[in-house]
Parts: sequence; structure tokens; C-alpha cells
Amino acid sequence: MTESTVSRRRAIALAGAGVAGIAGAAAVGGAVVRTAEQSHPAQAGAAAADAIAFTGAHQAGIVTPAQDRLHFVAFDVVTKDRARLVRMLKDWTAAAARLTAGRDAGEIGAVGGILEAPPDDTGEAIGLPASGLTLTVGFGPTLFRDAAGKDRFGIAAQRPAALVDLPHFPGDLIEAPISGGDICVQACANDPQVAVHAIRNLARIGMGVVTVRWSQLGFGRTSSTTRDQATPRNMFGFKDGTANLKAEETDLLRDHLWVQPGDGPAWMTGGAYVVTRKVRMLIETWDRTSLGEQEDIIGRTKGSGAPLGRADEFDEPDLEAKRPDGEPVIAIDSHVRLAHPTQNSNARMLRRGYNFVDGSDGLGRLNAGLFFIGYQRDPRTAFVPVQLNLARHDAMNEYVRHVSSGIFACPPGVTGASDYWGSTLFA
Amino acid sequence: MTESTVSRRRAIALAGAGVAGIAGAAAVGGAVVRTAEQSHPAQAGAAAADAIAFTGAHQAGIVTPAQDRLHFVAFDVVTKDRARLVRMLKDWTAAAARLTAGRDAGEIGAVGGILEAPPDDTGEAIGLPASGLTLTVGFGPTLFRDAAGKDRFGIAAQRPAALVDLPHFPGDLIEAPISGGDICVQACANDPQVAVHAIRNLARIGMGVVTVRWSQLGFGRTSSTTRDQATPRNMFGFKDGTANLKAEETDLLRDHLWVQPGDGPAWMTGGAYVVTRKVRMLIETWDRTSLGEQEDIIGRTKGSGAPLGRADEFDEPDLEAKRPDGEPVIAIDSHVRLAHPTQNSNARMLRRGYNFVDGSDGLGRLNAGLFFIGYQRDPRTAFVPVQLNLARHDAMNEYVRHVSSGIFACPPGVTGASDYWGSTLFA
Repeated sequence: MTESTVSRRRAIALAGAGVAGIAGAAAVGGAVVRTAEQSHPAQAGAAAADAIAFTGAHQAGIVTPAQDRLHFVAFDVVTKDRARLVRMLKDWTAAAARLTAGRDAGEIGAVGGILEAPPDDTGEAIGLPASGLTLTVGFGPTLFRDAAGKDRFGIAAQRPAALVDLPHFPGDLIEAPISGGDICVQACANDPQVAVHAIRNLARIGMGVVTVRWSQLGFGRTSSTTRDQATPRNMFGFKDGTANLKAEETDLLRDHLWVQPGDGPAWMTGGAYVVTRKVRMLIETWDRTSLGEQEDIIGRTKGSGAPLGRADEFDEPDLEAKRPDGEPVIAIDSHVRLAHPTQNSNARMLRRGYNFVDGSDGLGRLNAGLFFIGYQRDPRTAFVPVQLNLARHDAMNEYVRHVSSGIFACPPGVTGASDYWGSTLFA
Repeated sequence: MTESTVSRRRAIALAGAGVAGIAGAAAVGGAVVRTAEQSHPAQAGAAAADAIAFTGAHQAGIVTPAQDRLHFVAFDVVTKDRARLVRMLKDWTAAAARLTAGRDAGEIGAVGGILEAPPDDTGEAIGLPASGLTLTVGFGPTLFRDAAGKDRFGIAAQRPAALVDLPHFPGDLIEAPISGGDICVQACANDPQVAVHAIRNLARIGMGVVTVRWSQLGFGRTSSTTRDQATPRNMFGFKDGTANLKAEETDLLRDHLWVQPGDGPAWMTGGAYVVTRKVRMLIETWDRTSLGEQEDIIGRTKGSGAPLGRADEFDEPDLEAKRPDGEPVIAIDSHVRLAHPTQNSNARMLRRGYNFVDGSDGLGRLNAGLFFIGYQRDPRTAFVPVQLNLARHDAMNEYVRHVSSGIFACPPGVTGASDYWGSTLFA
């Protein structure tokens, strides 16, 4: 939608303000307009209580306390026109600022416009509060140079070296149609309808510029991102994310999460790289495995989440401890050991993955698992070596299948009213 | 799992109670057992507050105030052994009684058993309350006589005439692999992890007897089932379910919802028939439609949900009202008119559908819509004629595709400790 269209409809809506209080439709200046009482209740300001600030040095949705629901989407850019792409990013930014504040996607809203035009909000979130919504954008390798090697938008030279093409990991069963993408948007909220509404409206605004490549819903966050969040459980029934990077650990975030000056092209300073992996879990097989074997594979007790041989969830795993029979208490091929920073040159990530169930698989089984989301300063020294280690040795591999993969460069936060998603890259 | 297995493990667990308080594993009587402190926190009783009663004359999950989240599953029965099927239904009933009370699926639980055996609960709901979970079972036509015409379980004579094979409706694009099924279970809860956990554990218990044919997650209930619930919005952005049957309308429930004595085989008295339809909405097309056209198609205003020409959501639609130009205010092909009881020989249903988003469709669009769930006394006089009317005339058909269809006979409620799902059919 162009600014002039918005302005025209806005003017008509304002003209209609004089009939506020009259329910239904009223003819004003030749056009039928909706009255103000039908607009988004959340716009009255009540929603502010559970709204997350949209602007800041870093994007929201990374160290933000992990919300309970996810709608993650990857778009393909279908235009070759850089100006149209930038225009859409600006429109998206304006919409994202409104949506995260609990408002409609556009100025007119779902029911504030004229009868003759499509609304600029789709309406299914009318009456719902902000619900902690965050929207986080990232740019994939193919935005910089497409599959044919073409630099569609004149930004190939700006591609960070850290935005690697992820290698094929042993055991990978990656499905291309649900992997990659030019642009990603992560919507997290405490109400799935609010997360879905946000992604749907961004897709609507991007019509003609982007199409949905793949999208994933998630529930039941599997990681804590702040110290006061209880550690949730994944579909294996185990606590997950105990040793995650936490928002309060500012020194660690500087070292392991946020891109620092000099790391690469300046436009990414203050940003982070995100890796997504859809990990199908073979839960029926897992459910037939004994409790002891499950715990040996994870390296933690199922009840408390304590590392094997320790008493408390947050106790440091003792990777040296031996059983009476001389075998390590925490098995050599256990997930906790193989993913531990000391086994990976001190690699750390901020994980904020979600459980998923996507119906069934046609073979009598639920299609369920973990949608892994890991933010990091440099995937070359974090996700890639850790995943290589896991893919080669992890006893858990018998029960998981990686079917989708993505990597995106998430720029720094939007810092003012005229700023927009990607401004440091496209300005 | 047989009773003797449970008893053995239970005995071992009880033997281990003497070491309660010692974290981790301890060797007792030659077997390693978990200590009581690791068992399901919800078993302490704190969960009772948000638990829905499992027993009653009718099954819970029908007139129960609609919870926010859904996991619906249809199973194929893979055994030909009636005794095994009945055994599983009894095991399911025991598990359902526990799960809806916020407890583990089995007596031992996720972490209460021995290390050498698989847990009898999968663990991902440890620490979560009952969350309003309801589990509702139904039997499909193929349970009575399979696709080959075989009466596998000696119940063909008990098939109610009301449990019809749904006809092909005009425009239907039904996909067989995600339709039908021998047994359905509807899990509704206020936490998706709790709903998913329940279905997953029933599938685990049913291993070797049933396999998952299809399953559907939903969010954002699209109907109210009690008068104090606000009417939610569907993915078209409109309020849905305003004129639904409500739990308080006991006379209407008797006439339109609950199977009455003499309606058919006695085993269904107090039960209801459920029809499920997965209705894909072409939301991208809808979003390009003008507000006025959207409202004409629905027959209600998008803002307040009032019938066109009326002021309030709960005002009765005036199907006779004419515009100045002589055309009806509520269009002849509008959804509200075509679905109205007066246009369908007074047919009524209790709807409790959910919105869904199942990723994207590979064509750049979100795969989203409505999972319709309608409970009724007799589909021959309710769903079938109403859907025929809609399928033939509804202006909304341009924007929807019915891709999945199911019908199931939901027996009356479980009424005592020795009662079980299907007892009136199999006893």
C-alpha cells in the first residue's frame, strides 16, 4: 500500500469521525465509513501493560524473556526492484511497531476504513492485547546472492563472512522447500493468535514483493532466556536449555551473542546471527526406551534435570566423574557432554526454540519435535562446530532427524521513528 | 501395559519410597528406583483448581466452556482382537481420568519407575497443571464395518443410523489420508503442551492396537459454548459462533445435542455425534477483498459482529429487511442467512471449532483456516442438510476449501471407577 492510498483512506476516516457513536455504516461525503467505536479496542491503551518495546540497540525477541508461542516464517523475495524491497521493509517496520504495541497493522485498521477497500488489518486480533509480541527480522544468504549467483539488490559485497552457507551435517535429511529463505521473521507472543496475526499481516503487506517460503508454529518454549524463567521441557520430556545464555549475563552476551565492531561489515554491529533447525523427534521410539537409557542419552535426570551424578538442575556437569565400574557417569556420547562449551572451544549460543506438533506423518506417528532457534555472534565458531560434534557422536541422533535448516543475519535494533528494518544494510 | 506389569513396577516403586529425599538413583532390592520427590508436582493436588471433572452423564469437552487450544486425533485400529481393543479402551479411560486431573498418564509416572523400563508417562507435562484438559472419545463408521465391509469387532449391528457416511458435498476437496478414522479423541486444554501430552500418551498406550491416522492442532477457539464466553474471531477476522448452542440452554441441548432414548441403539443415549471438517481458508484472497464485500459474504459487520442492519452482535438477523434499492440487507447468499436455523428446518449444532495454521502450502501462502467441530443429536437433520445448503449457495465458498472430513459417535459419559470409554457399546 502506498502512502497516498493510506492518506486518502485516512482522510475519509477522519471525515467519518463526526458520526462516531452511530453503529454500523454511515454515508459521509459519498463514501461509507466505519465509526470509531468499531476500531481495535487495544488501541485505547489498555494493551500497553503487556507490550514489549519495539525499538532499541538490539532487536527485541532475542534476549526478551521467551514467550510461550512462536510463528516463524521465511520469505522468498520475488521482486528484483531494490526500491520496492526497501519500501516494503519500511512498511513492515511501521506495521511491526504498531503490532507489537497491540495495535492494528495499519492506520485505518480492520474496520476503520471504507467499505469499498480491503482493510489494512485482517482483524482476527481485534480485542486481543499486545500479548508480549516481538517481531525479529533476519536476512538469509540468498538475499545477498541468489541461487543463480545474481546480486539482485546490490548488496553482495555486504554479505558477512559469518553468514555462512551451513554445511551438510552427518545424518542431515534437510528438505529444501522448508529450508533457507531470503528474509525471516520470528514472531513470539503469549497468544498464538497474536503471533499468527502479525505474520499474516506482514505477508499481506509484502504481497508482490515476498511470498511465504515456509512457516512454522511452535508452542511450549524449550529454553529460558532469563534467570527467573523456569526451565521448560522438550518433547523428550526432559528439561532443555538449563545452560542457556541468559539476558542478565551481559559479559557473555557481548562475547557470544552480539556482533561487535570489527567483526565484519559495520551494518551488523549490534545484531546477531540466527540458525534454525527443525528437528523431528521419533517420539514413539523414544517412548519405548527405558528411563535409564533416556537419561544416559541426555546426561541428565528426567525428574529434576540435574546432570547425572549431581543433585541440582543448575549444578555444573562433572564430566570427569566415574562410576564404580570405571565408566564415565556422564556418557561419552551423551548430549550434555557433547554440547558442553568445554567440549566445543567455549562455544555458546542463546537458544530459544519451541516444541512443535505438525499433525501426523502418514505412517501412524505424530510429526513432532523441536524447532531449534539459536542466536549467536558467529556461527562459524558456535553452531557449526557444535552441530558437527553432535551430528558425529550424539547418542540422541538415533531419535532425531534434522529436516529443515536456516541461517539469517539479524541486524541491530530500530532506533527511531524514521529508522527501519535493514536500514544499516540498505541506507 | 498389562496390570501385572504395572503391579510389579508399582511394588518396586513402593519399595523405593523408603529412600525418598535422596536425590538421583538408589539401588533397592536389586533394582534402581526413582525417589518420590521426582514425581509429578501436580500430583500434590495443586492442580485440582483448574481440572474439569472427567466423569458424568455426558462426556466432558462438549458443553464444557471451550478451552483455547486443541489437539484432535483420529486413530486407525490395527488389531482384529476385540478383547485387545476393549483392554485399550479401559487403559485409555484410566489414563484419561488421571490426565484430566493433572496427573501422569500412569501410576508410576514419568520418573517414578525403574531405570530398566520405559516410563509410563512421557514427561513433557511435568510441573504443568491440569489446564482445563478434557478428553472426548468418538467411534467412526469404519469401527463398525471396515472399508472391506468386515465387522471386525462384532458391533456392526450396533451402528446407529445417525452415524451416516457423510455425502460428497459440492466443492469438496476431501483428502482421504487426513479424513475419517476408527476412533477419535478430542483433547482441549488451555495449554497446548498439556493437550499434546495427553494425545501422545494415549497413542503410546495404544501402541499395537491403534496408529495415528491424522491429527490436528488448533488455537483460538472460534465458538463460545457458554453465555459468559466472549465470541472469538476466526481467520477471516470475523466473530464466529455468536448463534451457537450454549451450555445453559438445556431445553435446546436436549432437542439438538444429546441423543435421547429411542433415537437409535441404546448405547448412544446421552451421547452426541461429532462432525469435523478442516476448512482451508484462502486468506490471501480474502485479504484483498473489500470490507463491504467481506461483510456481505458473512452477513455481519466485522467490528461488532452485529447482523447487517442491526446494532448488536446478539440481535437476531432480520432476514426480511430490504435496502432502499429493494435488495435484502442480508444477502441471499450470505453465510449468516444460509446457516440460519429458519433456513434449515430449525437445525442447530453445538460448534467448538478452532483456528489452525499448518505452515505454508508450497505456493507462497499460509496454510490456514478453521477446524470445524460440530456436536449434534443427529447429523442427518443437522450438519448434512446445513452443509448441503452452504455448499450449494454460500458466497463464502470462493474463499474456503474443505480438505478433511470426519464423523464419530461419541458415547455418553463415564459414570464410575469401573466404567470405561465405550462400555455401553462393548459390554
